[in-house]
Amino acid sequence: MVNKPMTKEKSKSSEKLKELGNKLVHDIEKGKNPEISFTLRNLSNIVFDQKTKTLRLGSKKGSRSFFNVAHAKKFLQTVEIARTIKKELLDTGKHEHLRGVFYMVKRTIPGTNVNIVDDQVESDKVIEDLEVIADLSREEMHVSANKMGSMVGNIVLEDSGDTIDCSKLGRGGYSIPSITDELVLKKVNAKYILYMEKAAIFERLNEDKFWQKNNSLLITSQGQTTRGIRRLLQRLSEEKNLPIYVLVDNDPWGFYIYSVVKYGSIALAHASERLTIPNVKLLGITCDDITKYDLKKQLIKLNDQDITRLKQISEYEWFKDNKQWQRQFKMMKELNGKVEIQALATKGISFISETYLPSKIKNKEFLE
Amino acid sequence: MVNKPMTKEKSKSSEKLKELGNKLVHDIEKGKNPEISFTLRNLSNIVFDQKTKTLRLGSKKGSRSFFNVAHAKKFLQTVEIARTIKKELLDTGKHEHLRGVFYMVKRTIPGTNVNIVDDQVESDKVIEDLEVIADLSREEMHVSANKMGSMVGNIVLEDSGDTIDCSKLGRGGYSIPSITDELVLKKVNAKYILYMEKAAIFERLNEDKFWQKNNSLLITSQGQTTRGIRRLLQRLSEEKNLPIYVLVDNDPWGFYIYSVVKYGSIALAHASERLTIPNVKLLGITCDDITKYDLKKQLIKLNDQDITRLKQISEYEWFKDNKQWQRQFKMMKELNGKVEIQALATKGISFISETYLPSKIKNKEFLE
Repeated sequence: MVNKPMTKEKSKSSEKLKELGNKLVHDIEKGKNPEISFTLRNLSNIVFDQKTKTLRLGSKKGSRSFFNVAHAKKFLQTVEIARTIKKELLDTGKHEHLRGVFYMVKRTIPGTNVNIVDDQVESDKVIEDLEVIADLSREEMHVSANKMGSMVGNIVLEDSGDTIDCSKLGRGGYSIPSITDELVLKKVNAKYILYMEKAAIFERLNEDKFWQKNNSLLITSQGQTTRGIRRLLQRLSEEKNLPIYVLVDNDPWGFYIYSVVKYGSIALAHASERLTIPNVKLLGITCDDITKYDLKKQLIKLNDQDITRLKQISEYEWFKDNKQWQRQFKMMKELNGKVEIQALATKGISFISETYLPSKIKNKEFLE
Repeated sequence: MVNKPMTKEKSKSSEKLKELGNKLVHDIEKGKNPEISFTLRNLSNIVFDQKTKTLRLGSKKGSRSFFNVAHAKKFLQTVEIARTIKKELLDTGKHEHLRGVFYMVKRTIPGTNVNIVDDQVESDKVIEDLEVIADLSREEMHVSANKMGSMVGNIVLEDSGDTIDCSKLGRGGYSIPSITDELVLKKVNAKYILYMEKAAIFERLNEDKFWQKNNSLLITSQGQTTRGIRRLLQRLSEEKNLPIYVLVDNDPWGFYIYSVVKYGSIALAHASERLTIPNVKLLGITCDDITKYDLKKQLIKLNDQDITRLKQISEYEWFKDNKQWQRQFKMMKELNGKVEIQALATKGISFISETYLPSKIKNKEFLE
């Protein structure tokens, strides 16, 4: 690993935060109340954009000004966090996690007994605000979150001066960093990506050399998809034009993982452009698979939470007129049960890698 | 990656399970009630072994026989799971997760409406029993669990025909597989291992090239240490004679992570020999660090759960006569607060990598 020089992108981010500061200085010099304006992130300003088919922010604007009792503290937090990010992260080329940034700004305002922030929720919110205010992703501001997930397959990456061949990492694989924006996708030789929620399935498929035999990339998180993995998937989709197939449990939570990757989420609607992947497809486990692959005995009864969640998801704007999906929701309700990916092991340990996946992919049995 | 031939170890595991089956066949041929005997794993048979300084099983034995209404189902489960592991995993060289093994044995006993197992808890328990019955670790039986954690540093591994240089994996690192027994530790050039509970700290230290500047290996889990990581740490300690320093939050849960890595746990007392590392040291965050590094303002008040846990840990047999540790427990109680590793960021983003860690290691400020 070698030191990275300040890249164009980093200096661009730094410039954007500087502009924000300059604007405030300008307000002060003009004798105006310093004010920051931005697109609102409230629920009322989150819309499903029919054109891009993703959750986005609407056009409602808000502002935060210094001489306003209701705004003053938030204003101070915003300026202080922007300063910390610019000076301590962007200008040094370093990265810090949300929790670390919280501690970096957590201190008492001189001459008072008031802390700039008391709780991480406050700094997290300001960082999300800054994404909108400065039109920078959290990653572009060098602020990271969960590191999670692994990747294997015919892909060569460059990062921090290292060349990483993900086809030569044994049964462990490449540990995906929390920020994937800065990875160089140097060489990719694969027909598609299989993204799965379960690391256990990843290990099974990797051991069976699924990616080698089927010329694909395997990527796993563990449960919900982190921003880092969503961004990596999006970049592989856009930069390398690779189809992405999602493999999750047949339950409302698995469907939700797919929904977030494809359409975005309310909490991160402001970042949809950099995170959503409109052309991902759900490979399985579908409700049809339950009959086709004789998995009825493996059904686990839906609990109350499952039923509530299923109803919510079936009413999502992007699902409600989708006949294929409405059919799935109806089937799940009628079966009153869910099936895990691992249930395929009842058909044999390598049934998933030798039969289920190749057959579904060959026959293009996807849900969209 | 290439196919691995059946190694000596694998055939040894397979032989041990075969012996178990042969013994039962022998019982039947002799007209005896087929019986499996094993060391009990009950709480009453878990002892702290003063010689090895680890939690171990005592000498109490139990048995399970076929013609015994109370034993018959457990007996059947044991035989069936042993058969599945031998035939489907060991003899094919494949690995499967606990959940997958559950599904592989989950079926109805012919001519009845009784399932061999109804719940994963049942198969998990039998697999733990088999560890004791056949004197095989779960890993030696090719049964895996959580895949978690990352590693970076001057270490070269061999796995499945791949040579993996963990000093050339950028900011992501090597994704640790769930079973680490089969990794070949080919070349290690490091003075010590820093094992930390938080992936966020791992990323910070990796970005600052801590392992390069301080000739060390960095290993992280995320929270509790998996069996795979414990085994990897133990192997690095024993095979490469590397000291291991544990970096956790200053709270009862951090102390517990250290305690498990060093002394073992009740749930896995039967596997202590392959998992515990008697010479690991706690690097921090200690209660002394709070004063020394001016972290009092970062104290988070202990909650009821913390207080209960602290009391329990302070009464552990291996801590109760340890003056250094009793002093820590007392200090934590008096401070009535805990401090996170990330709190060091209040001193500057690279304070942890440039000051805190090098100074503590140089001055050998460890707790044992």
